[in-house]
Amino acid sequence: MTIEQKPEARQPDHVTTGPVSGSRKLHTSPPGRPDIAVPFREVALDPSANEPPFRLYDTSGPFTDPSQTIDLAAGVTPVRSGWIGGRGFATVAPRPVAPADNGFAAGERLLPACPAAHPVRRGRPGQPVTQMEFARAGIITEEMVYVAHRENLGRAEAAPGAAERRADGEDFGAAIPEFVTPEFVRAEIAAGRAIIPANINHPELEPTVIGRNFLVKINANIGNSAVSSGAAEEVEKMVWAIRWGADTVMDLSTGRNIHNIRGWILRNSPVPIGTVPIYQALEKVGGEPEKLTWEIFRDTLIEQAEQGVDYFTIHAGVRLAHVPLTAKRVTGIVSRGGSIMARWCLSHHRESFLYEHFADICDIMRAYDVSFSLGDGLRPGSNADANDAAQFAELDTLGELTKIAWAKGCQVMIEGPGHVPMHKIKVNMEKQLAVCGEAPFYTLGPLTTDIAPGYDHITSAIGAAMIGWFGTAMLCYVTPKEHLGLPNREDVRVGVITYRIAAHAADLAKGHPAARLRDDAISRARFEFRWQDQFHLGLDPETARSFHDETLPKEAHKVAHFCSMCGPKFCSMKITQDLRAEAERLAGMEKMSEEFRTHGGEIYIEAAE
Amino acid sequence: MTIEQKPEARQPDHVTTGPVSGSRKLHTSPPGRPDIAVPFREVALDPSANEPPFRLYDTSGPFTDPSQTIDLAAGVTPVRSGWIGGRGFATVAPRPVAPADNGFAAGERLLPACPAAHPVRRGRPGQPVTQMEFARAGIITEEMVYVAHRENLGRAEAAPGAAERRADGEDFGAAIPEFVTPEFVRAEIAAGRAIIPANINHPELEPTVIGRNFLVKINANIGNSAVSSGAAEEVEKMVWAIRWGADTVMDLSTGRNIHNIRGWILRNSPVPIGTVPIYQALEKVGGEPEKLTWEIFRDTLIEQAEQGVDYFTIHAGVRLAHVPLTAKRVTGIVSRGGSIMARWCLSHHRESFLYEHFADICDIMRAYDVSFSLGDGLRPGSNADANDAAQFAELDTLGELTKIAWAKGCQVMIEGPGHVPMHKIKVNMEKQLAVCGEAPFYTLGPLTTDIAPGYDHITSAIGAAMIGWFGTAMLCYVTPKEHLGLPNREDVRVGVITYRIAAHAADLAKGHPAARLRDDAISRARFEFRWQDQFHLGLDPETARSFHDETLPKEAHKVAHFCSMCGPKFCSMKITQDLRAEAERLAGMEKMSEEFRTHGGEIYIEAAE
Repeated sequence: MTIEQKPEARQPDHVTTGPVSGSRKLHTSPPGRPDIAVPFREVALDPSANEPPFRLYDTSGPFTDPSQTIDLAAGVTPVRSGWIGGRGFATVAPRPVAPADNGFAAGERLLPACPAAHPVRRGRPGQPVTQMEFARAGIITEEMVYVAHRENLGRAEAAPGAAERRADGEDFGAAIPEFVTPEFVRAEIAAGRAIIPANINHPELEPTVIGRNFLVKINANIGNSAVSSGAAEEVEKMVWAIRWGADTVMDLSTGRNIHNIRGWILRNSPVPIGTVPIYQALEKVGGEPEKLTWEIFRDTLIEQAEQGVDYFTIHAGVRLAHVPLTAKRVTGIVSRGGSIMARWCLSHHRESFLYEHFADICDIMRAYDVSFSLGDGLRPGSNADANDAAQFAELDTLGELTKIAWAKGCQVMIEGPGHVPMHKIKVNMEKQLAVCGEAPFYTLGPLTTDIAPGYDHITSAIGAAMIGWFGTAMLCYVTPKEHLGLPNREDVRVGVITYRIAAHAADLAKGHPAARLRDDAISRARFEFRWQDQFHLGLDPETARSFHDETLPKEAHKVAHFCSMCGPKFCSMKITQDLRAEAERLAGMEKMSEEFRTHGGEIYIEAAE
Repeated sequence: MTIEQKPEARQPDHVTTGPVSGSRKLHTSPPGRPDIAVPFREVALDPSANEPPFRLYDTSGPFTDPSQTIDLAAGVTPVRSGWIGGRGFATVAPRPVAPADNGFAAGERLLPACPAAHPVRRGRPGQPVTQMEFARAGIITEEMVYVAHRENLGRAEAAPGAAERRADGEDFGAAIPEFVTPEFVRAEIAAGRAIIPANINHPELEPTVIGRNFLVKINANIGNSAVSSGAAEEVEKMVWAIRWGADTVMDLSTGRNIHNIRGWILRNSPVPIGTVPIYQALEKVGGEPEKLTWEIFRDTLIEQAEQGVDYFTIHAGVRLAHVPLTAKRVTGIVSRGGSIMARWCLSHHRESFLYEHFADICDIMRAYDVSFSLGDGLRPGSNADANDAAQFAELDTLGELTKIAWAKGCQVMIEGPGHVPMHKIKVNMEKQLAVCGEAPFYTLGPLTTDIAPGYDHITSAIGAAMIGWFGTAMLCYVTPKEHLGLPNREDVRVGVITYRIAAHAADLAKGHPAARLRDDAISRARFEFRWQDQFHLGLDPETARSFHDETLPKEAHKVAHFCSMCGPKFCSMKITQDLRAEAERLAGMEKMSEEFRTHGGEIYIEAAE
């Protein structure tokens, strides 16, 4: 399954490879750490721009790097192996794979396991294992150095105006530094304000940091097909999502072959992989929630932790006592995990086993550094149910659980809504910060109206941009198929790009010191009619180019000083350019302005400061 | 050119007709006014819902009414004829059409004029002509009665919880009433806080009101094709835009046949039509801005006012003194009208003739009740230029011009940006309200980031929803083709639906007493797996259905209690429903909760109030 590199090539049994249009992959090292290579993409601009290549944050892994050979069976390069290897963890005999792990798939229906070498490690009691434990011990890990360098993208270039740009933003109490030092990362993680989801069994990971004092991140959900034609098809969904900019990917697969599919994905994933272990546990008991037991759940946690899953959604906040609070809701419980646990609680008339065994769950997750994503099982599924008693009762419980997990040394983020009208978004962020001690917030949207099935990437992008601005650290994407069906390849692209927009709009509004560099670069390209540069600097060069080419397909049009929207005579940018040239000929507009002020009386007014 | 009615039928020389999927047109009359018939659409719900049909605001005109025969050559029914006819305006000989009006199109290239009867009226000096003049005189016009009834949609049904819902919203100083009386409309128009764009030469209009104490409106821009195959093709763009929900349409056509195209559109348009007369004036002088004169512009205003254009964008705020303020901008002047006027000012070294002749312009527009849309010719074209001295200097001038126009009896709205990051949006609204005396604000987006060519409907929907919430009365749509090319039919649909989302999200957040009815209706349908109802209650039934059917195409799936997103076993809504049924069997969740509180100690917690 060795895959040849060609630009955006893909066959049915292959994954998409080749550079993102107009950019090349490069790696740079943090100061004094030549052993650490952090990936970026770089867009070479038209010579007329007289600007250096523009560097972009890059989540796409080796799949966009022509110098790498992709062999899914071997997995991608385990960049963290040396780091993890040096930390003295135990190497353990893996938990044996049971037929139930793959949904009893057998014979031809069984997808073979990924053959990539995968020694299983576990932290020993008493030694630091999690990034939080290292951080609290004052130790700066390689992962912290890595993400600091990654987050510093553009900050040197932006430095001259950075203080001004930060002051210009509104960060609602975030504390985004001018430069990100490894020590700053360490301190943020020690305080619980940020996490680096990085299972010690996921050495292939290119680490990323999630916290409100860093760039806003986005997650894409993927899941298996009912009929999978092979491993490449499943890995491709992850590859496609990260190509367009997903910072993390959640594998929400159910049914047959999920254990083996997860293995293929993890061995080839440069981004953190999250799962919802209760889904697999439910499979193991034949889909009947009441048959779930702590023992089956516990075993599933270990199974997935050994494979290398970086974060688990755990719906331990759905307590028996909260369920009746949903009785009068318009849309009841809309979280799958939430409804499974509610059903379990009610049918047994018992407190949730996730809540009762929460300390045990922490002990397991700590041993592998699996981060918590404390699930919002009672999130609202409609505007009518937003910010209700059920939702906030669960949030209070998540705050309580956060403190337990932190005491156990675990990294934690908190999941949030859902469906919330604009005027009720801010209080969600404020309550979460207050109740959960500033643990990173990770929201789904929120959708600001319920009336647009087919367009919920948009109803939710509005809410996502706003809550990201207010302080949410990671935004879970919503695709156009939300509420309607399984997203296809194009839906995933649209969902990811839409959420990159929301995340970036949030970074800009927070006053991130370097965020506007990209806007300014593309605006200059736009004003100077550098069409190719405008495409390549955009989030989706292919779509931008194809839209442009629908009406002006010729190569010559790529240097034309107009587009089909207004045509050559009516292009305001062209008129402005002509006007500037003319004004410069008249000794410059400013001088001219000066002359008018002096000689022309009141014709020119003063620029407001 | 009589057009047969079939569901969503369209041939190349036809316009789209037939009901929007799942709804039927109906008309109802305001209390005591059987002579006035206001259009709505109504969605019949599945009998299992046990709910009355759901009524929707409807902008689509007679084209979705199977009881109407569409004959483009005759124009649509002039519903306002009787009202206008009773007001004693002069009937005048129309200004003769000159070859320049149609860009010198001749012979086969000349699109014939629309033959529909069109007597031209003009208000006499001293008599009230504009809605503002009537309002100030204490006279409630039929248009005011009409829009009051239209705006009251859902308010009776919503009345029980309306006070609560309004209190629950955040309206930033808007004053949205529980019921809209004609007197309230009159008072808002008299105060300049709202307008009803309604040229006395556009009797085909179904009036709509634009102001921050009413439903947020949206505008769609259309323009002619380089090669037009006929009148139907041009009218179809308007028909298509209003089918999906455009409240007003701006005809930005340039080049050949624009006079005659405008005629065909106006005689068939049930929504207000806006134009930018400077575009046509520029055509008449061969596309060279410096050749523009007041006389040519004045003649163009009369030409278009006689045809029935309801509002004109007038870039009178681009003063000579403002132009140098744009010198250091990243993207200069991006408004077409703005750049044309800047060029005129600079090349003549003279104050703008639009500014100097503003009182004359008012006199012309008053005589036909053409509303002002005071253009933001210096709006920012990039985040870098947002809220700069040029933008706000122009806004100050627009405030000054608003007062002049009001003194002349003209209706006014104010155009706004553009490209603005989230944290700089609110101050735009605040400044506009303060400077322009609460005249309705009409913004383009704003786009909250510049980095997503191909997705600017989304970058701008974020800003549009926010500024709509803050008080903007009308949002000008942006399509996915923004910055790249001319939108096609599908782009127009996506742009309109996206802006309906933004407008509705704004209404919800403002606490509009009836806005949430639709969200709640669709949420109930969603929770009860009434798939057809969910599609039909949504903004775009066709797209929702086609997305659903991609994976579950069979009719039987339309009643299935799951979709392909989660599948039957993992549907949280199904689990919740089962759970509720079970709980009800156990004598109801509330009773159960009660029992637990009494007997089970602390297992249940109290619902927060």
